Amino acid sequence: MAMRNFKMEKYLQDGEKTYALRGEIEKVVDELTAKEYDSVCMLGIGGTWAEWYPVIEVAKKYTDFPIYLENAAEFMIKDRRHLSDKTLFFTSSASGDTKEILDAVKLCKSNGWKVYGFTKDATTPLAELLTNPIYNACGDCEHSYLIYYFVMLRILKNRGEFPQYDRWADQMKNIFKVLVQVREQFEPQAAEIAKTYAHEPYTMFTGSGVLWGETYLFTMCILEEMQWVRTKAVTSADFFHGPLELVDDRVPVFVIIGEDEYRPLDERVERFVKKHTKKHVIIDTKDFALEGIDDEFRVICSPMIITAILTERLAIHYELNTGHSLEFRRYYRQFAY
Amino acid sequence: MAMRNFKMEKYLQDGEKTYALRGEIEKVVDELTAKEYDSVCMLGIGGTWAEWYPVIEVAKKYTDFPIYLENAAEFMIKDRRHLSDKTLFFTSSASGDTKEILDAVKLCKSNGWKVYGFTKDATTPLAELLTNPIYNACGDCEHSYLIYYFVMLRILKNRGEFPQYDRWADQMKNIFKVLVQVREQFEPQAAEIAKTYAHEPYTMFTGSGVLWGETYLFTMCILEEMQWVRTKAVTSADFFHGPLELVDDRVPVFVIIGEDEYRPLDERVERFVKKHTKKHVIIDTKDFALEGIDDEFRVICSPMIITAILTERLAIHYELNTGHSLEFRRYYRQFAY
Repeated sequence: MAMRNFKMEKYLQDGEKTYALRGEIEKVVDELTAKEYDSVCMLGIGGTWAEWYPVIEVAKKYTDFPIYLENAAEFMIKDRRHLSDKTLFFTSSASGDTKEILDAVKLCKSNGWKVYGFTKDATTPLAELLTNPIYNACGDCEHSYLIYYFVMLRILKNRGEFPQYDRWADQMKNIFKVLVQVREQFEPQAAEIAKTYAHEPYTMFTGSGVLWGETYLFTMCILEEMQWVRTKAVTSADFFHGPLELVDDRVPVFVIIGEDEYRPLDERVERFVKKHTKKHVIIDTKDFALEGIDDEFRVICSPMIITAILTERLAIHYELNTGHSLEFRRYYRQFAY
Repeated sequence: MAMRNFKMEKYLQDGEKTYALRGEIEKVVDELTAKEYDSVCMLGIGGTWAEWYPVIEVAKKYTDFPIYLENAAEFMIKDRRHLSDKTLFFTSSASGDTKEILDAVKLCKSNGWKVYGFTKDATTPLAELLTNPIYNACGDCEHSYLIYYFVMLRILKNRGEFPQYDRWADQMKNIFKVLVQVREQFEPQAAEIAKTYAHEPYTMFTGSGVLWGETYLFTMCILEEMQWVRTKAVTSADFFHGPLELVDDRVPVFVIIGEDEYRPLDERVERFVKKHTKKHVIIDTKDFALEGIDDEFRVICSPMIITAILTERLAIHYELNTGHSLEFRRYYRQFAY
């Protein structure tokens, strides 16, 4: 199926390149975990914070080990007593010039803390700051998820907490092909949803658990930043403590439903909105088959499904309806602030 | 000064009653901390979650001890390995019939975990579930803050981590009088702000650190739930990763500025919005004197300032302009969902 602004061949080639980083990532992780360490800390901001979010949520299902996700801007001014040179630090910035990330990594280095992670190539300012930088040319979210999971789940494997690592990682070889099928399945819905809702003055989104990161990312980093579409994102639990009162046939509510233990909270929102607004859109990862991937890994892959169908496909269809280029910014990265 | 829907005499009497709970709370805490315990967990949902939020943020400035804030709905389905019968559990529900709180307390009790805390009187369902329930007739936020701080800061005192507890608690005797002065100072602004913005179709709020709880509470539990006013609340750090692109002269942005270490992040938003929208409203706790209260306790009191001026005074002026009763709900607590 031809999909607007989607070059399948290039996508699959990029996917192969990203998958090929597996060995390099595992080597870095294996060296780090062979030494003494007492915590793990991921530094992110905006989109990268949101991408690390599910990786850490997944990790917490398998371990009690201290794993921190720090917002890079808040990291600069917050207390950092919980971190030390025994912490394994990772970060990522495809552009390699995100101000908050650079500041946070510099601060780490001034404390003698090494930071590992990813950027697009050796020319970026971040590449110069990272220890053993790993170059990932494609900054799309599912690529990020895959390499972040390689980091996090390999750490857990080495701790004896995710012995199924190799089986999972082997199955990920096909994830990009599977995500093409996911896109193809969603494409007619993407076109229809965007046509119906792209001009709405205000749209509510709910999500939870492993999928909260994508709920945050799609609303803030895509619809608000790239489409100037006004949104409200709220967790499925909190929806019932305020936002529900706004709902009627004038308010579109997108309900993102996942497959982890938070699912009953999402389904509660689904039941509510189906009764109280005609403008409900239900996005359920369970509707998408993941061929060749074991069911026990579906939760791990669920943010990849959401990013493929919303952050990528739905965004492109919003653009088609709003006429507002996804590339255009008036403030973000346009000047210092 | 006469203020609409504000009965000063009753307010000060209620304040005295709340302050009078100090001895009872200290006694419960002293008994609990005399025994072995290895963590503290506060259970909240919606408004109560938001009220516990700053109390825990403040506590973390003084201690590395494990203190958890759990969303009561998520608590039901989440992993709870970090909690045990060595955890001190507290909760609160003025009405005493908040579904998620009752479910969470029942779950604790089924695990043999005692839960302490607050409700309005002995007749509520929560009163029957709590161990040594403490009755706080007035559920207004600043009253809640005071009693939650009595709990949390007394725990820290008993751990040797907040030796200034008695001086702080003694000074709180006058907090309600001080919060009348704060209200009086803000009253003309409240009238003006509500007149200008109450009919806006979409209003953005930023906040951070200790004041994030109030940013969440005022937007979700007041403006959305009680006024059906559409909002977007975002942390000062995250504002720069998406929401900023929405800002122009059509979008009101309320910038809540606090006095903890997050202040530079708030001030960054202030500088941005002053340049990019005429509709900026700056709410800075520093503008309010706290007579008779030491400067080192200002951060502790800062959510009380915000709740007095926004959640209480500004809400009343919104109501005056929208004509939408603060008491009216169409869904919340109207039927099961």
